[in-house]
Amino acid sequence: MATNERQKAAMENLTSIVGNIYDQLDAGNVPVMELPLRSKKNIEFNVQHNVWTYGDLRTMRTSKTVQGAQMMLRTVYTADFINEMIRDNKSSTLREMYYISEGWERAKFNSQDESNLLAEDLEIVSKCMREDFKLRPEESGAHIYGNLDISTQTKKGMKKFNCMDDVAETGFAVPYNVEKENFEIADTDAKFVMAIETGGMFARLIENGFPEKYGAILVHLSGQPARSTRRFIKRLNEEKRLPVTVFTDGDPWSFRIFASVAYGAIKTAHISEYLATPTAQFIGITASDILNYELPTDKLSDKDLGALNAELTDPRFKDGFWVGEIQAMLEMKKKSEQQALAKYGLDFVTDTYLPEKLGDMGVL
Amino acid sequence: MATNERQKAAMENLTSIVGNIYDQLDAGNVPVMELPLRSKKNIEFNVQHNVWTYGDLRTMRTSKTVQGAQMMLRTVYTADFINEMIRDNKSSTLREMYYISEGWERAKFNSQDESNLLAEDLEIVSKCMREDFKLRPEESGAHIYGNLDISTQTKKGMKKFNCMDDVAETGFAVPYNVEKENFEIADTDAKFVMAIETGGMFARLIENGFPEKYGAILVHLSGQPARSTRRFIKRLNEEKRLPVTVFTDGDPWSFRIFASVAYGAIKTAHISEYLATPTAQFIGITASDILNYELPTDKLSDKDLGALNAELTDPRFKDGFWVGEIQAMLEMKKKSEQQALAKYGLDFVTDTYLPEKLGDMGVL
Repeated sequence: MATNERQKAAMENLTSIVGNIYDQLDAGNVPVMELPLRSKKNIEFNVQHNVWTYGDLRTMRTSKTVQGAQMMLRTVYTADFINEMIRDNKSSTLREMYYISEGWERAKFNSQDESNLLAEDLEIVSKCMREDFKLRPEESGAHIYGNLDISTQTKKGMKKFNCMDDVAETGFAVPYNVEKENFEIADTDAKFVMAIETGGMFARLIENGFPEKYGAILVHLSGQPARSTRRFIKRLNEEKRLPVTVFTDGDPWSFRIFASVAYGAIKTAHISEYLATPTAQFIGITASDILNYELPTDKLSDKDLGALNAELTDPRFKDGFWVGEIQAMLEMKKKSEQQALAKYGLDFVTDTYLPEKLGDMGVL
Repeated sequence: MATNERQKAAMENLTSIVGNIYDQLDAGNVPVMELPLRSKKNIEFNVQHNVWTYGDLRTMRTSKTVQGAQMMLRTVYTADFINEMIRDNKSSTLREMYYISEGWERAKFNSQDESNLLAEDLEIVSKCMREDFKLRPEESGAHIYGNLDISTQTKKGMKKFNCMDDVAETGFAVPYNVEKENFEIADTDAKFVMAIETGGMFARLIENGFPEKYGAILVHLSGQPARSTRRFIKRLNEEKRLPVTVFTDGDPWSFRIFASVAYGAIKTAHISEYLATPTAQFIGITASDILNYELPTDKLSDKDLGALNAELTDPRFKDGFWVGEIQAMLEMKKKSEQQALAKYGLDFVTDTYLPEKLGDMGVL
């Protein structure tokens, strides 16, 4: 696969960042680099786009201290390593990049947190994405199932797959880079997207023939969704104009999974506009579902209660629906799992629960 | 997909177990059921087959107590549920089966541990496998990559895939049931199998073209390997006569991953002869590798030290190689990861480390 436009832009932008450090040194100055402050203090909920983004607070990284100079050196080494990968048509896990730095002597990272953070800093400064740097996470885990043609990079070049006909029961595994250059999405007659938290429920809907019957594209989130999973959902929503629904367990952590799909996460606030799908709708399990369907429950732990209370002050959950749901769950002190619907048999979720909920939401 | 011979046998065997309970009741007796004792006490290392199996200790499950009677009732309900699934061509996650029991009134399971254990008990008594009961785990996660044709069940019947040409960069996802009836493995000109612990290393070997160059079939273990992953490896070894190698991190937990591939695990001791590949060879990371290749390391934690000491009394690690490796690691008090090889660049593992080690082992 040849170097694409996005990767060329990444190379150029990284080179100009390094060039800027060089010029400062050349002019006899101590080099500095400006970045948005990347802490909770500087996270703003962008009401216009309905996503989290960084605010106006900036931090200056200077080489006046040993630590600062070391960070600058790491920046240069990392930019060089990324350029080399793009040129050689290689990629690297974030973990490998951390170990690669073992050979950088004084620029060596002390932990993978440091190298991960620097990769994100470079995204912010270069306005490129980590995927264009050829950096990828250990594994993504997400799978798709539905009547959708996609083309993706294989060892033998771009290849087309239908995510229903050309896959086994486990679905199609989403690669780490789902930008257009690596991953084309064809037009589809599917009606909507359903992102699903657990592998068990994803398999249930496939076995029950739900995608065929209702024109759904299923996306298995596999816990907190990877960047590529969120980006893929966003592209289906934006380019194919498909409504997005999210079906999770009914507990505070699952509410956060929804929020990260819909509004973005703090760690990736600089690319929320690429990753978040603000029109995504939450199907359940809601606190009201637990009552209405008399679902089997577990008691909320102290950690669960703490998470729910924190959500009450989280701007992502500020609307009436969420405030109501969170308060109802705090009152009943109970949570439930999406697979608990099996209480009524293996078909209940596809014959009754989902058609009812999707009908109420106006998706079906 | 129609009911296959194995599933028919499962139905018959389960029906006869329930019939046996019925006959005892009919004769006016309190029904009993005999099982091997399923605790560490009754695990033996079968020197002939080189795998873990249950010993001769037996336990009698009787309905004389309320708890015992309840277990018998659950056995009947579970057998009925499994029969129904096979008849209706359905399957269920272990979690769903636990929730299904919500409708069984007094036979309801109190936890998923109970329902998982009963499924295993039924395997032992019926001499069938859980997969033939149409029970599956939440997710398996394992992927294959290599020049191998397999045929597997899809929604449109059996379909053939080449695990190199017909897959994206993530490889082919192993389904939960890899018995012949669901999963055919064609003859292959591959030379050996390499089971790999981490997704990062699996992706590295694919990107570097290792499977093509050396005729390797890669299997991503994804931590402690699922039953289907171990069964698939066993079938490649037994039916296709391929040597099996295991490439993991260098720490006590990874040694156990190797042992579970090679010798079996305590939980599945009743089916070790289906799952374990006693001729599997450990590539590394070994304690000697850490020294020889001067790999980046982390200090062993107290838990790591405890695990290593426990391994010294584990019959699976009784041979000279393992005793030496465990003692060397205890002495240096350090562990290392397979991705630490990236210290020498992204190609070191495929250009140097693996050819050297596989050459020494006589695989290449």
